[in-house]
Amino acid sequence: MYCFGVDLGGTSVKMGLFQFDGTLIEKWEITTRVGGGDHILPDIAQSIREKIAEKSLKKQEVLGVGIGVPAPVTKEGFVEKSANLGWAHKNVKHELEALLEMDVMVANDANVAALGEMWKGGGAGHRNLVMITLGTGVGGGLIFHGNIVAGSNGAAGEIGHLTVNINEPEQCGCGRHGCLEQYASATGVVKLAKQHLANNTAPTVLQADTLSAKHVFDAAQQQDAVAQKIAQEFGDYLGAAMANIATLLDPDVFVIGGGVSKAGEALLGYISAPYQQYAFFANLDAKITLAQLGNDAGICGAAKLILS
Amino acid sequence: MYCFGVDLGGTSVKMGLFQFDGTLIEKWEITTRVGGGDHILPDIAQSIREKIAEKSLKKQEVLGVGIGVPAPVTKEGFVEKSANLGWAHKNVKHELEALLEMDVMVANDANVAALGEMWKGGGAGHRNLVMITLGTGVGGGLIFHGNIVAGSNGAAGEIGHLTVNINEPEQCGCGRHGCLEQYASATGVVKLAKQHLANNTAPTVLQADTLSAKHVFDAAQQQDAVAQKIAQEFGDYLGAAMANIATLLDPDVFVIGGGVSKAGEALLGYISAPYQQYAFFANLDAKITLAQLGNDAGICGAAKLILS
Repeated sequence: MYCFGVDLGGTSVKMGLFQFDGTLIEKWEITTRVGGGDHILPDIAQSIREKIAEKSLKKQEVLGVGIGVPAPVTKEGFVEKSANLGWAHKNVKHELEALLEMDVMVANDANVAALGEMWKGGGAGHRNLVMITLGTGVGGGLIFHGNIVAGSNGAAGEIGHLTVNINEPEQCGCGRHGCLEQYASATGVVKLAKQHLANNTAPTVLQADTLSAKHVFDAAQQQDAVAQKIAQEFGDYLGAAMANIATLLDPDVFVIGGGVSKAGEALLGYISAPYQQYAFFANLDAKITLAQLGNDAGICGAAKLILS
Repeated sequence: MYCFGVDLGGTSVKMGLFQFDGTLIEKWEITTRVGGGDHILPDIAQSIREKIAEKSLKKQEVLGVGIGVPAPVTKEGFVEKSANLGWAHKNVKHELEALLEMDVMVANDANVAALGEMWKGGGAGHRNLVMITLGTGVGGGLIFHGNIVAGSNGAAGEIGHLTVNINEPEQCGCGRHGCLEQYASATGVVKLAKQHLANNTAPTVLQADTLSAKHVFDAAQQQDAVAQKIAQEFGDYLGAAMANIATLLDPDVFVIGGGVSKAGEALLGYISAPYQQYAFFANLDAKITLAQLGNDAGICGAAKLILS
């Protein structure tokens, strides 16, 4: 038996063919034709049909297709709106099921990535998991008792928009002030670094005009004291937010992914110390690990939607 | 077909006999014999056996027993520790099943109350619910996709210990600083009121030596300006915390219970305004309602553990 895992992004669609035991047999990509949004699902269906033909699979051997989409998705597979994809009021599950005549499961891409990391990544062996993706923004996915928590509007897990500093003068992209994303995303780290450099007279290898999150964490690794202070401030915001998340959800494990997480194990040190300082006693034993699947988290989690 | 709902408290055990359709046929109480903790479950089993005999029920007509306990409970019905009950490493589910020879479901009492309010109280008709109990402390229960979120240690939903003010000098009972419970519980409201009265010269009916949360909300209803300011500060802390909870969980509805909630609809006004101010755009339509079941929430939710 087989299934397909599909990770729909704004520029490309990543796709994987999986065996029932979870083995990834093959992965490939197609371009996302976003103009108008009407081509996206037919293109995906076509690619799946071609792969079925190429591999000489029988239709009854294919259990179904899981798909992660970059928009809020209700538990029923409904997308109210995705500006990036040109979608509005779209029942992705029903449309793709009609195109393929097979079972389809749909969920938000961040939640699907979290499911993938639970299945065969940084959260393997756990059933209660919070994934935090530190990229250009900060995203999140929640898995409880092995299932995605989608929320009423499919908007659960918007960890980047937890308010962590009510005194922040700068506005977040969401229109509010002091969202976690303003400090813990790649752009947030650069913002913190600029503030430190503006008020700093100590020697540092960091330069205000060529800053990136990677520069900051690399320099911190090299014992640059200014970079270490920036990394500590980043970790303080993130660790405090994670302590509140744990108070609410009592997870087994936090899985940290996204571009910023490429700083590796050193990053976890900056997060774990403030987490231990701020956490409620019942949550002190929650694990904090790095994501392991990289770009494959989406197709793996999407496949798991079908296989679980 | 019938089932029993049991709400185990530190001084009494509330019990209810329910029909399969959810009708509460009869409710009664027994005393909780806490000494050592060994009598509690046998006493409950005895009372259930007596009720079965009194009503001439056949054993096969009884689907099982649901029970809420005042301690963290894992999804498997295990209580690591309850100082109040004298329990340690207790498998409540297995022990009560052995005593009664019928199915038993166990969950934390705050989560069970939340399930009750979802079933036939303030959250009726919803599947994603956050219950906040404003009593001596602040408790909470989370229901998602119709199921209790217990967490890794059975400690999910500790809403009272969300950190909402990192600058709080006073220590919370948990040893940390700035927990929601320090502002939004009955004792928290009194603390806020004392601070306002100490710094206040405006006329007010409130008196520092006879303060209670009820006095504050009653006076606010009577247009006492000082009391209104206290109620606003209470609502600001709670509304901001609820906005962060919604960012994470995207619930359909918040259900507000506990002694402080007896202030009624006026209380919701003090909470809703700051919630609307602080909430992420996707969560602005979350409902905020009062609990409706009072002391029956526990037995109802416990029965629902069996009936769902």
